Amino acid sequence: MSRNDPKRILKAWGEKIVEQIKKGKGPEINFPLRNLSNIVFDKKTKTLKLGDKYGSRNFFNVAHSKKFLQTIEVASIIKRELLESGKHEHLRGVFYMTKRTIPGTKVNLVDDQTESDKAIEDLEVITGLSREQLHVSANKMGSMVGKLILEDNGDIIDCARLGRGGYSIPSITDELNFKKVEAEYVLYMEKASIFERLNEDKFWQKNNCILVTSQGQTTRGIRRLLQRISEEKNLPIYVLCDYDVYGAYIYSVIKYGSIALAHASERLTIPNVKYIGITGDDVEKYDLKKHLIKLTDKDHARMKQVAAYDWFKDNKEWQRQFKLMKNFGGKVEIQALSARGISFISETYLPEKIRKKEFLD
Amino acid sequence: MSRNDPKRILKAWGEKIVEQIKKGKGPEINFPLRNLSNIVFDKKTKTLKLGDKYGSRNFFNVAHSKKFLQTIEVASIIKRELLESGKHEHLRGVFYMTKRTIPGTKVNLVDDQTESDKAIEDLEVITGLSREQLHVSANKMGSMVGKLILEDNGDIIDCARLGRGGYSIPSITDELNFKKVEAEYVLYMEKASIFERLNEDKFWQKNNCILVTSQGQTTRGIRRLLQRISEEKNLPIYVLCDYDVYGAYIYSVIKYGSIALAHASERLTIPNVKYIGITGDDVEKYDLKKHLIKLTDKDHARMKQVAAYDWFKDNKEWQRQFKLMKNFGGKVEIQALSARGISFISETYLPEKIRKKEFLD
Repeated sequence: MSRNDPKRILKAWGEKIVEQIKKGKGPEINFPLRNLSNIVFDKKTKTLKLGDKYGSRNFFNVAHSKKFLQTIEVASIIKRELLESGKHEHLRGVFYMTKRTIPGTKVNLVDDQTESDKAIEDLEVITGLSREQLHVSANKMGSMVGKLILEDNGDIIDCARLGRGGYSIPSITDELNFKKVEAEYVLYMEKASIFERLNEDKFWQKNNCILVTSQGQTTRGIRRLLQRISEEKNLPIYVLCDYDVYGAYIYSVIKYGSIALAHASERLTIPNVKYIGITGDDVEKYDLKKHLIKLTDKDHARMKQVAAYDWFKDNKEWQRQFKLMKNFGGKVEIQALSARGISFISETYLPEKIRKKEFLD
Repeated sequence: MSRNDPKRILKAWGEKIVEQIKKGKGPEINFPLRNLSNIVFDKKTKTLKLGDKYGSRNFFNVAHSKKFLQTIEVASIIKRELLESGKHEHLRGVFYMTKRTIPGTKVNLVDDQTESDKAIEDLEVITGLSREQLHVSANKMGSMVGKLILEDNGDIIDCARLGRGGYSIPSITDELNFKKVEAEYVLYMEKASIFERLNEDKFWQKNNCILVTSQGQTTRGIRRLLQRISEEKNLPIYVLCDYDVYGAYIYSVIKYGSIALAHASERLTIPNVKYIGITGDDVEKYDLKKHLIKLTDKDHARMKQVAAYDWFKDNKEWQRQFKLMKNFGGKVEIQALSARGISFISETYLPEKIRKKEFLD
């Protein structure tokens, strides 16, 4: 068992608590606070992370004792049922495994999944281990194709030989091994329909790259996968989104992190990722004005909010893009490029942008 | 070009309209109505399908002429841009390809995607070709692993060698070829987290089967894939859902079809599919009472509605299940089985149910 083995780390933490008890002290857990007042945007590393504030949880404090128990119980289940068996369990499954009546009482240890979820997040900050290292999974989402051969649980998978479908990305991507990477960059897109267009056009073959998509949100699994390819294989990551505030936000989460997952930024953010989605300049250049979709009040409000975030407010280029969007009074979807021809995106738009390095930072 | 070639069918249909014009007749299209009054549950084939009512659309009827034009334009785009190039396009992309101003006017041919979507559905009933045969795709979703080797766009894919991730199911599954199927049955589950559990436990290897999941709704692509495996490879399909009215409905759509897609039932429904999800009897047998989640008013209302559907109302076993659910006042999620042990579902629950053939029909 190596020094960094999660089982060893959990065991050492448990032993510390046992020691407190043996010494006659009330057991206590200390960990960085995760509330908004302790989430900072670090201008040096350009990531959202936790600040210096610490809190403690004491078993003999009535307001803390149930949460204390929940954290201990979840840690025990994770060590015994997951880490020792090598198995992984979904957040919902961990909830059902934790849900039992405290012996001699009528009190349930957890009544609601948010309680076990919180206990798992606590464990992340207490131990410095990610939820994935603790073998707890969440949403499985997304597909990948391209010039990459990987090993997944003993199987060697060539992502260049997976047809129109592709490789279905598992919820935990920490355990994948990249065996051979011929690609020069990774293109990540929020929309699976664009992925299918580019894959059908063999864009990854012609342009020597890897295509990754989610079907919805960018999960932790996909963010970690992109980060690992960026760091371990030193490949640029380009993010392809709609020209709207939600696209800008999706991009910013991949680059800088998010408030909800600030404690996990180190294992998720990719500071050198670039935005290759539609811009206000593209709207003019590619004659997309007739495809502008009118901004709603909600869009305007969200744009005001996002533009004021620490990680956007000093970024001149993005401020310019938000201003252009406001002037147009509209947003443009990436699919609007189909109006220029079904393969315009793969034959003209993307190769041109990449050749001219027309990215936003 | 074979007689059944979609290009040929579209061309013949276009020629019929040209002929009408040459004869000096107002062009007219006839097709089965798709409104609720013409959707019937066929007790013999046990599928929802369209009845005998026909409607017509006349170019010289002001109320029809725009829809007439939309149908013709979409047909033309599909033939020229998709079928002739062999490419596929998403519903949203077809909308942008269709969206143009009618020359000499300020009128857009389509303003909203619902218009092009409807035109594509019209084309399905007019030509008897499925949307997939017309090369129009929708949501890409779902994963597959197990004892199946398939060919996807020239690549040979062994679904037994795809690690924890699996094969990412394309949005159109009509063009896949099943090269070698060793499996004895297919297990389809709505929840990707259960898929990951069963895949990690190598359930498909130990039980010689195929696992399929969606991440959300059962798309047309997944339904067609399951139907094709059922019909072409003669394998039983088992559907694993939560014990709630939504699980029952998911199952019924796969088996009998849905109102919205009644016109496509022939290519989607699987009359001999079986339900292997949690039942009211399982709640007692596997000690799941403490995991019952209280039914809401919405659940009760939906259950009343679903229980009264033609395809459920004469099904004694399902009526009994709905009654049990009402008596419990609660529903049970499949993940609740984790409370019995992380691999209880793969080592005990499923093998037992399959061995004893404890299915609902």
